[in-house]
Amino acid sequence: MEKRIILLPGDGIGKEILEAAVKVLHVVEEKFNHRFVYETHAIGGNAIDRFGVPLTDETVNACKNADAVLLGAVGGPKWDNVPADIRPEKGLLKIRKELGLFANLRPIKAFASLLHASPLKEHIIKDSDILIVRELTSGIYFGKPSERRENGKVVVDTLYYERYEIERIVDKAFQFARMRKKKLTSVDKANVLESSRVWREIVNEKSSLYPDVEVEHLLVDAASMKLITNPSQFDVLVTENMFGDILSDEASVLTGSLGMLPSASIRSDQFGLYEPIHGSAPDIAGKGMANPIGMILSAALMLRFSFVMEEEASAIEAAVNETLSDGYHTADLQIENGTKLSTNEITEVITEKL
Amino acid sequence: MEKRIILLPGDGIGKEILEAAVKVLHVVEEKFNHRFVYETHAIGGNAIDRFGVPLTDETVNACKNADAVLLGAVGGPKWDNVPADIRPEKGLLKIRKELGLFANLRPIKAFASLLHASPLKEHIIKDSDILIVRELTSGIYFGKPSERRENGKVVVDTLYYERYEIERIVDKAFQFARMRKKKLTSVDKANVLESSRVWREIVNEKSSLYPDVEVEHLLVDAASMKLITNPSQFDVLVTENMFGDILSDEASVLTGSLGMLPSASIRSDQFGLYEPIHGSAPDIAGKGMANPIGMILSAALMLRFSFVMEEEASAIEAAVNETLSDGYHTADLQIENGTKLSTNEITEVITEKL
Ligand SMILES: CC(C)[C@H](C(=O)O)[C@@H](O)C(=O)O
Ligand SMILES: CC(C)[C@H](C(=O)O)[C@@H](O)C(=O)O
Repeated sequence: MEKRIILLPGDGIGKEILEAAVKVLHVVEEKFNHRFVYETHAIGGNAIDRFGVPLTDETVNACKNADAVLLGAVGGPKWDNVPADIRPEKGLLKIRKELGLFANLRPIKAFASLLHASPLKEHIIKDSDILIVRELTSGIYFGKPSERRENGKVVVDTLYYERYEIERIVDKAFQFARMRKKKLTSVDKANVLESSRVWREIVNEKSSLYPDVEVEHLLVDAASMKLITNPSQFDVLVTENMFGDILSDEASVLTGSLGMLPSASIRSDQFGLYEPIHGSAPDIAGKGMANPIGMILSAALMLRFSFVMEEEASAIEAAVNETLSDGYHTADLQIENGTKLSTNEITEVITEKL
Repeated sequence: MEKRIILLPGDGIGKEILEAAVKVLHVVEEKFNHRFVYETHAIGGNAIDRFGVPLTDETVNACKNADAVLLGAVGGPKWDNVPADIRPEKGLLKIRKELGLFANLRPIKAFASLLHASPLKEHIIKDSDILIVRELTSGIYFGKPSERRENGKVVVDTLYYERYEIERIVDKAFQFARMRKKKLTSVDKANVLESSRVWREIVNEKSSLYPDVEVEHLLVDAASMKLITNPSQFDVLVTENMFGDILSDEASVLTGSLGMLPSASIRSDQFGLYEPIHGSAPDIAGKGMANPIGMILSAALMLRFSFVMEEEASAIEAAVNETLSDGYHTADLQIENGTKLSTNEITEVITEKL
């Protein structure tokens, strides 16, 4: 099958890890007889340097004409002093919005061979397997006007949701729950926010369409506790944009390996944008030390969700698991009796196992 | 010294744990020769049952004329279907606002004898000692109008801050940092929210008044991760209302003992409201099983912050620590070789050690 993939390396370690993922994809192409066509575009700080803005129309249009997008990471201290409306992160927020990627999926599952790397005790995390479904294109992230009033005396941000925005993300979450352990935990702050009360109403309404899925409502403060004390109570967790941002970063601690975690940002068709959940790590950029696994597993999610290549996706995941079980790792992990490798070296081990 | 204390038992286990705290205070009165005058008032679900609202003017006025307030907990499934604007929690939000209690303090420190009860590994938590300072009377909790528009098609909540509200909480946090390890971590989402950018500016401005305090800014998503992966990097953590709600409940996992954690809600003078951070636990109410320690330690915070009775506060804390070291505990904790006691029994052990 031929597929067009846009590569957005972004800043910091983005370029190195994206190169690693493409190497893995080349092996998949060969082995499974596919043709992937790649095109690289700018986003984030490097786009600011070259074009004065973190995202150009050219990049947006290229993405719109492709089958999927792979993104490294954006940002770094170099751009700390650019005006707020053209910061590198704005490029990321804008591309999510322009491409209509309303559903951010973050699968959180500890790697069997890395249980000891988590700050949590092994018996707490060992059976946990969570899919976080975060609303990604609305809420307080996009609720204009965010503004200073009365000469800077007052500042206001607006949490804004339209019903259909909540309905479509809740539907997606139910659908994923159906394909998994059939439990959906909806997280809100219904004892304080009106938007959360609407959210809860919609979840309850929708649940009659998915009678096979068990639904639970949790307040966000309780959820932030339970994710750590009892992670195995979760299957699919669905929540609004800001709560999802906080809880998914928090949940990453279950795995003890932020560098390993992939994410998918999708919509109603098969198009998607795939990126690791870690940042651009400017301090180690260019040193060949970056952990490419979050990016490589993001490419696997692309194969699964955008190209419906389940076998290929699973093959990559199996190769990564084997590599980790053999004790290979990058410098971000401390592993007794393990073998520390560079970005290139670990990528090579993974491609060989493919 | 004579002090007037308002007791607000609230719902569920509130009554039992408040009775336990008062027993401990009686011993303090005797031993240190103080006179505390108590007056009990309604709040939460029981106020709804009796007066149709979760907080009456009478309760508010009684609090305004007292030196401090001790609150048990509010809410329960019994009031799940009352209209949103008179839910039990609204009583809590309203009393915080009416009394101007803008600073919520949550000290998070693992009990040496309970390290094994945390879901986190011992080496992660053993040196952690965090004071969370949460803004409590503004932000998205109070930013009217929270409303449905266009026939319910749209829902809006407003995150609203005035500069002085941010300034006074930041000042408080700096002052606490100065009395502790002189490190202040300010948590915001400055890459997305305008209110967070103002927050960050104010922290930076204020920091010139506290040159002896080291300041660090963290994004809320990163903070939610670091609280678990590296809690000992924190000393005082200051943040806005909603982030503080989420992060302080999350941080409670460090101690593995939610039932043990106290909180203080204070303002610029010595008045304060003190409550455990756990909820009303209606499932175990009236069974004599509740853990009174969060409430008892809240009473200790009252002695320290509102009455400036440091010796008395420390005496209670020491008695609690000894009780735990001796292996006594309530049913909420699983402790090998420990002695499980009822609410009354553990309170008696604590008072005897005082
Ligand atoms: C960089 C930032 C704007 C972004 C977000 O908050 O969505 C990031 O934290 C993420 O989760 O992808
Ligand atoms: C009950 C609820 C409104 C309250 C809050 O969100 O402030 C509670 O979670 C707390 O932290 O005291």
